[in-house]
Amino acid sequence: MAASTSSLLAAAASSSCTAISPRLPRGAPAAASVPSPSRHSCASLRASPARRHQSLFVASVAPTMQPPAESRVSTVVDVDLGDRSYPIYIGAGLLDEPDLLQRHVHGKRVLVVTNTTVAPLYLEKVTWALTHNNPNVSVESVILPDGEKYKDMDTLMKVFDKAIESRLDRRCTFVALGGGVIGDMCGYAAASFLRGVNFIQIPTTLMAQVDSSVGGKTGINHRLGKNLIGAFYQPQCVLIDTDTLNTLPDRELASGIAEVVKYGLIRDAPFFEWQEKNMPALLARYSSFNWKKNICLPKFKLNIFFFIFAVNLWFEMHICREPSALAYAIKRSCENKAEVVAQDEKESGLRATLNLGHTFGHAIETGTGYGAWLHGEAVAAGTVMAADMSHRLGWIDESIKKRVIDILEYAKLPITPPDTMTVEKFKSIMAVDKKVADGLLRLILLKGPLGSCVFTGEYDRKALDETLHAFSKN
Amino acid sequence: MAASTSSLLAAAASSSCTAISPRLPRGAPAAASVPSPSRHSCASLRASPARRHQSLFVASVAPTMQPPAESRVSTVVDVDLGDRSYPIYIGAGLLDEPDLLQRHVHGKRVLVVTNTTVAPLYLEKVTWALTHNNPNVSVESVILPDGEKYKDMDTLMKVFDKAIESRLDRRCTFVALGGGVIGDMCGYAAASFLRGVNFIQIPTTLMAQVDSSVGGKTGINHRLGKNLIGAFYQPQCVLIDTDTLNTLPDRELASGIAEVVKYGLIRDAPFFEWQEKNMPALLARYSSFNWKKNICLPKFKLNIFFFIFAVNLWFEMHICREPSALAYAIKRSCENKAEVVAQDEKESGLRATLNLGHTFGHAIETGTGYGAWLHGEAVAAGTVMAADMSHRLGWIDESIKKRVIDILEYAKLPITPPDTMTVEKFKSIMAVDKKVADGLLRLILLKGPLGSCVFTGEYDRKALDETLHAFSKN
Repeated sequence: MAASTSSLLAAAASSSCTAISPRLPRGAPAAASVPSPSRHSCASLRASPARRHQSLFVASVAPTMQPPAESRVSTVVDVDLGDRSYPIYIGAGLLDEPDLLQRHVHGKRVLVVTNTTVAPLYLEKVTWALTHNNPNVSVESVILPDGEKYKDMDTLMKVFDKAIESRLDRRCTFVALGGGVIGDMCGYAAASFLRGVNFIQIPTTLMAQVDSSVGGKTGINHRLGKNLIGAFYQPQCVLIDTDTLNTLPDRELASGIAEVVKYGLIRDAPFFEWQEKNMPALLARYSSFNWKKNICLPKFKLNIFFFIFAVNLWFEMHICREPSALAYAIKRSCENKAEVVAQDEKESGLRATLNLGHTFGHAIETGTGYGAWLHGEAVAAGTVMAADMSHRLGWIDESIKKRVIDILEYAKLPITPPDTMTVEKFKSIMAVDKKVADGLLRLILLKGPLGSCVFTGEYDRKALDETLHAFSKN
Repeated sequence: MAASTSSLLAAAASSSCTAISPRLPRGAPAAASVPSPSRHSCASLRASPARRHQSLFVASVAPTMQPPAESRVSTVVDVDLGDRSYPIYIGAGLLDEPDLLQRHVHGKRVLVVTNTTVAPLYLEKVTWALTHNNPNVSVESVILPDGEKYKDMDTLMKVFDKAIESRLDRRCTFVALGGGVIGDMCGYAAASFLRGVNFIQIPTTLMAQVDSSVGGKTGINHRLGKNLIGAFYQPQCVLIDTDTLNTLPDRELASGIAEVVKYGLIRDAPFFEWQEKNMPALLARYSSFNWKKNICLPKFKLNIFFFIFAVNLWFEMHICREPSALAYAIKRSCENKAEVVAQDEKESGLRATLNLGHTFGHAIETGTGYGAWLHGEAVAAGTVMAADMSHRLGWIDESIKKRVIDILEYAKLPITPPDTMTVEKFKSIMAVDKKVADGLLRLILLKGPLGSCVFTGEYDRKALDETLHAFSKN
């Protein structure tokens, strides 16, 4: 019965087809709460009895996409890096599509790298997707402890040990299944194992989906600083199944939103304004209308899909201003990141702007011990500090600083560092930041109207001192 | 007095100018024992009172070279890799030329990575070369324990610790000063520190000068196999000061010769034939005529340079058939390697041929415990095994196999693996070799006339079994 309901819903989707707009032009007026579809963006999805978790409103197809005919892929964002280019697939239920994953697997051996939290939820599904109708492929897995504090060399060695003990060879593929920590570690392991093997990113947190899985930054922490050891190494593809967000704790969701906010602030004012209007929908994780979660009690299955459809419409019009808010935020974030990475893969300049708030944030993470604060929480406080410093320098209006604080506060993210972070602690940790060059700390600061920033070492040191003293103890 | 003698000798060199030929064409007849200079290869070197260790016979200049006007650089071999191209400087006394090294240093901070054997010999000289007339540059150093058994993650972490504790930033330069182990570890550390910083190779062993410092293969060992963790990462330049060979133990010299022999076997028959004629000179390490070592007792300084010059000439004509034999062998080896690397940087095919004898050799190194045998010793025995297998397959004449054994035996290199290597041990370790693809072990085997080889997984397994049984116990 569930299947037939699902297929009916899918059929409804194929005719409504209103969901995700393509990229908003930078100079466009503030986005409406529901972005309009372009003439390219609407393609019908056909119903299939085999589908599960079918999303009702995610139905647009970007012109570059070449998913299977019956694909749930709603969007493909291409990361354009010459012979290292790759697609980011975004959609609900993508892990139910073996073809999508299998086309990017090289060789007959796969190592899935995941953690103790994600493995019970998705390892079986991913293994099925890798091997379904594909008997030649064998899958190994290594399950690491969960948390930023395990993003170190000892844990990385467990990946190498497993790969070598399993006698994987150069034609194998590593699959990162998890959040940013797993993606970074698996990516660095793939970059280093036999001097480089293929790998695929399957991010399961919002943080990883909007930021860390895209762009090829991989690595581990050192006790003295974050991400100090690593490599630029691009995956074969990034596969974002938005259904995985259904199992994400609220705190992790908010952490990811800190990075979404970042894209608006540094380069995409319309996106920031859209976020201001749609933050309730983002926090309510309307990645697509999840009828199972929102309408039905798990064991109370309604066979009257018209009722569901009507409630759905009502929801869209009255409660959820953008039913696919989260999916849109992911897509828009990936597009922003892909554009930046394509222009500056190795972070010689432009790409550094993606680190707004990160210098302060990394100091918080290192200073409080990895894992005490989530990455996005530290970035949120760091972003407020960067906005404060930008305002002290006279580079932005107070209204922008206020909007930064308001949106992060609304998302229940911290807007000040923890009490344990002293001025000296900040200075000492920031001195080993990767953006230090010839002894000079360069920062990403907001400058000009909303959506503009600079990456510079030319700023008044007094403003940095004042910000540090305003946000932390001596 | 020594200086004046040296400058007179140098003046003599500028007029004799007969040393190194450019690359021999592949199809050329067997090289004469003293390769002829080309019309491009002769350029005079002017004497300078500041010079030490002036080499008498190394005076040719390749057309691509742009050393300082008074440079001791005898040859520059360019590794052509697009925006990752770099020069290999070869000559005697290059560490006495600060300009040469300093032009490849980026930023103001340098980390020299070396070991307990090399540091007392050359660290001070290299530090001087980096800082002479260059007060803005500061040099840190990390001295690692010496030996293949320390080429592991724990030792690598010492490099990261030092770099991070010294607050080095992205604009720093790592300098590898030592043999292959130091080069591989420093290179991998440079590839990974802050996701990649500049580095320079100063190889001080023949093995590193003719092979491991060129081509960007970096990495560390895993307890289950050699070089299983690493990166392809190219240096800014390779600086080969042939004077450093004066302090190299004989066993280490012979180890390097195993790789020199390899180039002849896989792709350069004239070079192999030249080696057969000049092996005595190579083993006597006539990199250039070392008058200090060969004519004078250390404290018995002759002021009669004519006498030295006469003895020198006599030596060249009667004893040492190729006075710059070692320098020529280094140059020709680097040229061969540079050509291969330029065509196949990431070892998709052709580059693998540089691993003739290495699959068997790595198994010996891993099986006997890293460091028991030197790399070149293991490669020598492995090369004989590869030649034996090639002969069993009917791919080469017995005469070639015999010549392989003869030349390696003459160089006092082992031609059989140690007794502890059983057939099972070989098979078990070779199963995790990097050249295994989809479970199939691919090998580099000689095939056809001298100087020809193949990289293939298509061979009769019986021949491999027979070779293993012929060379090791059950």
